[in-house]
Amino acid sequence: MDRIPIVPDIVVGRLPLYLRALQRMAQEGQSITSSQELGERLGISAAQIRKDLSLFGEFGKQGTGYQIDYLVEKLRQILHVDKIWDMVVVGAGDVGRALSRYQGFTDRGFRVVMVFDKDPKIIGSQIGSFQIQSTDTMIQAIRENCILVAMLAVPADQAQEAADKLVEAGVKAILNYAPINLGVPEGVYVQNTDPVTYLLRMSYYLAS
Amino acid sequence: MDRIPIVPDIVVGRLPLYLRALQRMAQEGQSITSSQELGERLGISAAQIRKDLSLFGEFGKQGTGYQIDYLVEKLRQILHVDKIWDMVVVGAGDVGRALSRYQGFTDRGFRVVMVFDKDPKIIGSQIGSFQIQSTDTMIQAIRENCILVAMLAVPADQAQEAADKLVEAGVKAILNYAPINLGVPEGVYVQNTDPVTYLLRMSYYLAS
Repeated sequence: MDRIPIVPDIVVGRLPLYLRALQRMAQEGQSITSSQELGERLGISAAQIRKDLSLFGEFGKQGTGYQIDYLVEKLRQILHVDKIWDMVVVGAGDVGRALSRYQGFTDRGFRVVMVFDKDPKIIGSQIGSFQIQSTDTMIQAIRENCILVAMLAVPADQAQEAADKLVEAGVKAILNYAPINLGVPEGVYVQNTDPVTYLLRMSYYLAS
Repeated sequence: MDRIPIVPDIVVGRLPLYLRALQRMAQEGQSITSSQELGERLGISAAQIRKDLSLFGEFGKQGTGYQIDYLVEKLRQILHVDKIWDMVVVGAGDVGRALSRYQGFTDRGFRVVMVFDKDPKIIGSQIGSFQIQSTDTMIQAIRENCILVAMLAVPADQAQEAADKLVEAGVKAILNYAPINLGVPEGVYVQNTDPVTYLLRMSYYLAS
């Protein structure tokens, strides 16, 4: 692929939705789609989809639509999931356990390889195929394995300390389940996923 | 509060972040803040925060900042969480279990009141204080209790069917954990929270 111009963040945020919908179409046995069809599935206009994708090259021909397999492959390259990213889970409570056992990562470019907690009572016990490791040895373990991606599922009041350790260990991307904003240096990416903030976006629109 | 003009969706999306940061400041014993301080916590410009809040009225005085308690109260009114919303959880797998037991809802305006699953092997068993109920009786139970909010944590291939039932039962807001786009009628709100789409937003920026 040629050099890509700077792509707005909001466009980057839509690419995973395109990839997910296309992968689902492929699973359903479909081989060709159009920006119209994709748009209807996603509630995004066909023009927006064509414009977003055009930032990365020519993926479809006027009138014949998109080859789904080809577009999936290209989107995986663009989103850097033409490989598998190893991840750690920090925090082995309910959310951390659910993440550790979640089956939906591997075929979409990610896999959990280690789970950490600070509670001596659960360190050493198993979650699925993982033995819970101590956060005391976390920095070294992450460094040795060159892991760049972490999911943080500790209580809010422990989240910044854990994030600091992750950053020290070289982690560059943190999916944050703690309901708190993390301070991280430039070059480290955080995505927050707090169920209540999503619920509030909807309750705003509900007549009370 | 006076009649509110139409507020852009993107502003509505930031209000929960303001509320969360302000509640945290209050917890930490702080009583006054400024748009500067709030902006630094959130990585949002002070000007943006002032502009967003000004859509809803006058909340601070030039030079003296915001009274945190007052602004929290106002934001709770605006987001309709000056009451508690009852919620159902559909799907009692790992994610559904984590949501059912999550301690962070109640003091932020929501509470789980029922948990449903379609698997006869687990219907009747307990998650925390909830007895798992059959999805066969879900529509009636939701209607009788006038519940408007649901969290959907079933596998992707069961999600649309479950969402259709929720809509039929009168649910107006669905927090969707299944990695699939749901079709719902107008007037029903869906927020998607698929960990992989968030991870992909970050892996885009990581050199592979």
